Amino acid sequence: MMNRVDLNCDMGESFGVYKLGLDEEVIKFISSANIACGFHAGDPVVMDYTVKLAKQNGVGIGAHPSFPDLSGFGRRKIEFDPDELEKYIIYQIGALMAFCLGNGAELQHVKAHGSLNNMASTDEKLAMAIATAIKKVDRNLIFVAPACSSMYKAGKEAGIKVASEVFADRAYNPDGTLVSRKLTGAVIKDPDKAAERAIKMIKDCRITAVDGSEFEVEVDTICVHGDNPEAINLVKKIREELRKEDIRVMPMREFIK
Amino acid sequence: MMNRVDLNCDMGESFGVYKLGLDEEVIKFISSANIACGFHAGDPVVMDYTVKLAKQNGVGIGAHPSFPDLSGFGRRKIEFDPDELEKYIIYQIGALMAFCLGNGAELQHVKAHGSLNNMASTDEKLAMAIATAIKKVDRNLIFVAPACSSMYKAGKEAGIKVASEVFADRAYNPDGTLVSRKLTGAVIKDPDKAAERAIKMIKDCRITAVDGSEFEVEVDTICVHGDNPEAINLVKKIREELRKEDIRVMPMREFIK
Amino acid sequence: MMNRVDLNCDMGESFGVYKLGLDEEVIKFISSANIACGFHAGDPVVMDYTVKLAKQNGVGIGAHPSFPDLSGFGRRKIEFDPDELEKYIIYQIGALMAFCLGNGAELQHVKAHGSLNNMASTDEKLAMAIATAIKKVDRNLIFVAPACSSMYKAGKEAGIKVASEVFADRAYNPDGTLVSRKLTGAVIKDPDKAAERAIKMIKDCRITAVDGSEFEVEVDTICVHGDNPEAINLVKKIREELRKEDIRVMPMREFIK
Amino acid sequence: MMNRVDLNCDMGESFGVYKLGLDEEVIKFISSANIACGFHAGDPVVMDYTVKLAKQNGVGIGAHPSFPDLSGFGRRKIEFDPDELEKYIIYQIGALMAFCLGNGAELQHVKAHGSLNNMASTDEKLAMAIATAIKKVDRNLIFVAPACSSMYKAGKEAGIKVASEVFADRAYNPDGTLVSRKLTGAVIKDPDKAAERAIKMIKDCRITAVDGSEFEVEVDTICVHGDNPEAINLVKKIREELRKEDIRVMPMREFIK
Repeated sequence: MMNRVDLNCDMGESFGVYKLGLDEEVIKFISSANIACGFHAGDPVVMDYTVKLAKQNGVGIGAHPSFPDLSGFGRRKIEFDPDELEKYIIYQIGALMAFCLGNGAELQHVKAHGSLNNMASTDEKLAMAIATAIKKVDRNLIFVAPACSSMYKAGKEAGIKVASEVFADRAYNPDGTLVSRKLTGAVIKDPDKAAERAIKMIKDCRITAVDGSEFEVEVDTICVHGDNPEAINLVKKIREELRKEDIRVMPMREFIK
Repeated sequence: MMNRVDLNCDMGESFGVYKLGLDEEVIKFISSANIACGFHAGDPVVMDYTVKLAKQNGVGIGAHPSFPDLSGFGRRKIEFDPDELEKYIIYQIGALMAFCLGNGAELQHVKAHGSLNNMASTDEKLAMAIATAIKKVDRNLIFVAPACSSMYKAGKEAGIKVASEVFADRAYNPDGTLVSRKLTGAVIKDPDKAAERAIKMIKDCRITAVDGSEFEVEVDTICVHGDNPEAINLVKKIREELRKEDIRVMPMREFIK
Repeated sequence: MMNRVDLNCDMGESFGVYKLGLDEEVIKFISSANIACGFHAGDPVVMDYTVKLAKQNGVGIGAHPSFPDLSGFGRRKIEFDPDELEKYIIYQIGALMAFCLGNGAELQHVKAHGSLNNMASTDEKLAMAIATAIKKVDRNLIFVAPACSSMYKAGKEAGIKVASEVFADRAYNPDGTLVSRKLTGAVIKDPDKAAERAIKMIKDCRITAVDGSEFEVEVDTICVHGDNPEAINLVKKIREELRKEDIRVMPMREFIK
Repeated sequence: MMNRVDLNCDMGESFGVYKLGLDEEVIKFISSANIACGFHAGDPVVMDYTVKLAKQNGVGIGAHPSFPDLSGFGRRKIEFDPDELEKYIIYQIGALMAFCLGNGAELQHVKAHGSLNNMASTDEKLAMAIATAIKKVDRNLIFVAPACSSMYKAGKEAGIKVASEVFADRAYNPDGTLVSRKLTGAVIKDPDKAAERAIKMIKDCRITAVDGSEFEVEVDTICVHGDNPEAINLVKKIREELRKEDIRVMPMREFIK
């Protein structure tokens, strides 16, 4: 049984005059921040601000690279050449790393955004392109990858640190993949139930799939959201339950070595 | 008298399918490359390629940040808030630095591009924003600044390394500023004359201004171009004359400590 | 004395997932909408939606072109070649016009955005570039130009229709230019006072400048805002006062022939 | 037997300082130009120039819309929502149309670019989104669609004018689809053979597929290229053969009513 976990959340997704997300609120409840790098959201001013915000709150800082798709918020699937993708990821990690250097902070992890994350979860070539990019820039960076995904495997194969990520509010198939959002029941909206699932995942290292079967899972970090008040309530609820169970929330770098 | 000098040239200004510059040719004759960072030219694939090219040729690698102006190639003057500019520069330096890390190379310097370079040559706030950005990312980076410019002063004031840059093929005013391109005689087209001027600048640390007067100048690096065959001929001519005078061409990091 | 006026407001400034402005609320109180064309804000989906919204509300539709500056929301001053600017404006007008065609609506006017509007108010070449762009695309389009500005003059000189625009909530210099926002008193925050000024401008065709002097002004359209609840309250207040005075609010095309 | 045909070619694919294609040469040999609209290539200055060039040479003008993908030249497959695609196409058609208006020219046709063209050739929803966009902007515009493609069918279903396009230098499968470029023999490099195929297509309305079988085809326009001297030689060769056979080359608007 594990008595620690990381909570990661996307942040820094404002752009120019456009504001998005309740970063200043949710930052208090998470332990790692995935900061947009300008390709789907974020700009240099927002990135610097968000790195400062994360540092001030003792939150681990991560690069959150995406396909180049500002108008689609990185949610459009793009057929990308893996070699080109590797370079696009390196670029974005470097940009965020510079803001860490500029603020006396350290870059902790990398997590792919949106459709890139979805596609690389099952596409081995894309997964390895991201792992390779991370390894090339700094082999001490942690690759945040969905549990059981191609990215998880690629990270391990590349010999870099990998954090296994789970979703408290998403239903799982027996093979460890997420139930498609197009199906009913894919998203668990009841915060109590989601929090309960989170606890079970961490304590038992097991997830109950939609068919009632169970499978083993490694849990390093739980993906949470901060775009709206309900999302923040779920994070609070999860933290509350974690506290009751004496499970400590901490940046992944403290236990992924 | 100095017996060494650096020759710097803009590179990596291709973008996607678009090719620009004779990088593979001019790289043989220069000692430092200013590599575009995606804001006026360049993209992640081009940046990676150009870093590799520079490394293979033993050429010092520099970030060449710009205003965000792809359609104007960074040549449009933009009134930029200095604080925002600092972040935009940090972003670009970081992006290029990541490709250096990825290729086992070291970032040597930073040189502003196009209208940013022009504006920051006389605008103290912009100049200091660039110097601050460099200092924040890595205080060992060399700031390439036109001799006598606001950028040169800002770099010194910020306490970072500064390389004083001169132009062999441009006429100078008595105060050390360049004669506007709008005036006849601003550009010295005769390669022999330009090469001769370069030698004089390095050997005597003096430039003859348009009015015949002379002023002192520090010469660390000469700006050359590789966009067309004539530009490359000028570089060759300068190298030839430098050889005759026993002035060694080397990356600026070797003598700016 | 005039008994009609147009109220124009910027709209359609959302972009992708980013929402901006209270378009659905303010649309009820205005008579002309300046719709962003994708260069400082807006995207094809937003443009189509906003054209539909304007049409449904009987509001005159205008193109709101800008410098290409998404990250700066078109607020950065850019030194633009007038010939190039003309083409950039033509492009944006055309894009919006196509959504009008697609929705069986008619394009009524063109109003420059942000720093382009500011710069072209005093720069004759930029002003003429915009007037020329409008004339080339459709000489029946109305050029919305600040009263007494270079754009107003350029529009008249080009022989196109011009709407003279005033600001109810801005202080004026005796020469008809706006008092710089950097000076105190530049913005009139009291809605009663702003509404009162609007009435006076329309009824008397006169504006009282900051020094107490008065100057004549032609008033076709008043610039209002819909970005926040206070702005909308000001619009409501102005409409209320206009009603009391029997001044009708209508799209500018109904009286500018 | 047909005694007329259109030759269409992509043009206006330069961007800012970047030059691409031999537009000024190939324009002499074609009858219709597909002009980039800024999403994969082209910018307002290039668009205006290319419209002028086409008009001066009596060449039919077409909009060549693309996915928003400047860094990938519109060659990356993007999973696009059909409703959003419709708006993105309307935007681009409108932009080019404005340059036609500005130059006293008429927009003749629309042809999708790159991966959008490839995807919409077999995806009915994307095909219909393009057809709908065209119809909404101007139902007199001609939709250039590969013979036998989903786009061809969508155009017919939408009730707009459609030009059936064939490729002289590409091998065909028996079902009318193109042989994948990944297979050997997909591209016919011998200009004599390609020209001969073009003649047969036009005269007999038949194409010989890779397996030796023949299928019927409607031929309104042949796709040619102008990016390099060999491509231009192929165009010249085709024109030569067409002349021998008394097949007239003319803009598609002259025979598609």
